[in-house]
Amino acid sequence: MSTMNQQWRLAARPHGLFEESDFQWHEEPVPALKDGEVLVRNVYLSLDPTNKVWATMDSYMPAVPLGDVMRGFALGVVEESKNPAFAAGDVVQGLLGWQTYVISDGKGFAKLPKGTPMLASMGVLGHIGMTAYFGLLDIGKAKEGETLVVSAAAGAVGSLAGQIGKIKGCRVIGIAGGAEKCRWITEDLGFDAAIDYKNESVGDGLTRHAPNGIDVYFENVGGKILEAVLARIRLHARIAVCGMISQYTLTAPEPGPSNLGMLVSRRARMEGFLVSDYMPRAAEAIGDLARWLAEGKLKFRTDVVDGLKEAPRAVNMLYRGENMGKLIVKVSAEAS
Amino acid sequence: MSTMNQQWRLAARPHGLFEESDFQWHEEPVPALKDGEVLVRNVYLSLDPTNKVWATMDSYMPAVPLGDVMRGFALGVVEESKNPAFAAGDVVQGLLGWQTYVISDGKGFAKLPKGTPMLASMGVLGHIGMTAYFGLLDIGKAKEGETLVVSAAAGAVGSLAGQIGKIKGCRVIGIAGGAEKCRWITEDLGFDAAIDYKNESVGDGLTRHAPNGIDVYFENVGGKILEAVLARIRLHARIAVCGMISQYTLTAPEPGPSNLGMLVSRRARMEGFLVSDYMPRAAEAIGDLARWLAEGKLKFRTDVVDGLKEAPRAVNMLYRGENMGKLIVKVSAEAS
Repeated sequence: MSTMNQQWRLAARPHGLFEESDFQWHEEPVPALKDGEVLVRNVYLSLDPTNKVWATMDSYMPAVPLGDVMRGFALGVVEESKNPAFAAGDVVQGLLGWQTYVISDGKGFAKLPKGTPMLASMGVLGHIGMTAYFGLLDIGKAKEGETLVVSAAAGAVGSLAGQIGKIKGCRVIGIAGGAEKCRWITEDLGFDAAIDYKNESVGDGLTRHAPNGIDVYFENVGGKILEAVLARIRLHARIAVCGMISQYTLTAPEPGPSNLGMLVSRRARMEGFLVSDYMPRAAEAIGDLARWLAEGKLKFRTDVVDGLKEAPRAVNMLYRGENMGKLIVKVSAEAS
Repeated sequence: MSTMNQQWRLAARPHGLFEESDFQWHEEPVPALKDGEVLVRNVYLSLDPTNKVWATMDSYMPAVPLGDVMRGFALGVVEESKNPAFAAGDVVQGLLGWQTYVISDGKGFAKLPKGTPMLASMGVLGHIGMTAYFGLLDIGKAKEGETLVVSAAAGAVGSLAGQIGKIKGCRVIGIAGGAEKCRWITEDLGFDAAIDYKNESVGDGLTRHAPNGIDVYFENVGGKILEAVLARIRLHARIAVCGMISQYTLTAPEPGPSNLGMLVSRRARMEGFLVSDYMPRAAEAIGDLARWLAEGKLKFRTDVVDGLKEAPRAVNMLYRGENMGKLIVKVSAEAS
């Protein structure tokens, strides 16, 4: 009996949050490998805010075509290889998709060094860590003594960006939703202050915690929080735009901040980035991140959901702010 | 009988366009000079979009206090000096204000080289030319072969930014209001295309004239035009934010563009600047601008209004888009 590949295929363009009916569960036998191909068993599937963008529209990548397997960044183990670049047992990462197995020519798959901890590679030592690192340091140019504000500060990227800010000597203010997240980022992660946007005015909180203004803003959310930050930026401030999660599940476009003119009066810069552009410099980030992790200077939390079947429900946790730490679907066991 | 100084003092914070009642006409004798002081007779007063900002609120400078002479950039002739840095006959520029004479310690006044044409110094060889030059080249990083869009393209700064873009080998598309302005920038100034925002959809025009997208946007207006440009930016686009004139006379804040997320998917940069930051590099710009002017590669138009009395009415021409070229009030004759 052949191995079955289980897949979530995109069945409809989501409107607002994902509905389970936007996906279709599909099972088919894994075919025999051809020359040059590699068979990967999916282990950890990353759920990221950008999933909604991929499912909805052409952006930095084309929208996932309806009927195709849902696009997803994941980490898996090579089960069988007819491609000389891979061997059975190799751990690879890439856009493996929302499925239990993938057959591929291996293009775009990166092999992890032997012994790399798999779960850490999904987060602090992978695309999440690199996003925080390059966004904060290369785009945000955060420097010692500066005031850094991070939104979605208890999220996977935000929690790392804030901790890297502390390592670099910034005063760090996190914006997060709810008392538990705010407690975590200040007491456990060492942020200097937290603003609970669900229970207090972000503008008032920023005025209180950053009375002299904001030098760097690590932007994950967009909307009214961006407006509150813009109103308080300092001369030559930098806004590193990682994402705008508040916008991804809107059913109609929301107006932007009314005070973009602050960019002129403060001679400030707002710049978007994608971690994929930094892959050639990955070693630079991973080296620092691994050292800080070993020194106990970085903490990282994963929120692991068990089973591919759960992915359509779990992904909405991101947009509802329900996850604490990096949201991951465990598709199969690390060791088969 | 002593010389009288005539002044427009700011009497009220303007709401929307300026009202004449926002100013108060005041005359007082010019007092005798003290040691270290210089008396300057105002010749050309520059009217700039930022005047509304100065009169309304604290921004990159404090708001003009009510009761004070209205702030204004101007060029004048030294009538008398008890300051060794200045001599009678020197031509100086700086924030001389909306008045016929100013007594000052000379701090912040720049002396023009002997023989510099005074009217040109109010525009292409002054702060206007430098704004276009550094905004386009230092912030916008416009390069040969790129597609440049300029808004307020028939304005003082915009018309120069577009021409500098052509000199640098860009394809240049100007956005302006009305057929006459559009004809001027294409037929006389050599822009590749013009979009008349009063009579056609800016989005459609951009799609037609920049089918492959926009590399650099020289932003003067803000609002819906910014949104239309953002929707069409290319990878690594730069938006040099010189000003947002559409916002300056609003009586209530207007929502910003709903598509700032484009900065992420296009990894694009949006950055504000002020020409005052570039004063240490003035010679670099003035050298190039003067050479291009001599070579006939730059055209520049002035729109001169006669008499300080007219300033409160004339300044609104900027926000209504009524001026063609640099708007200047002639306060007195160049030679006394």
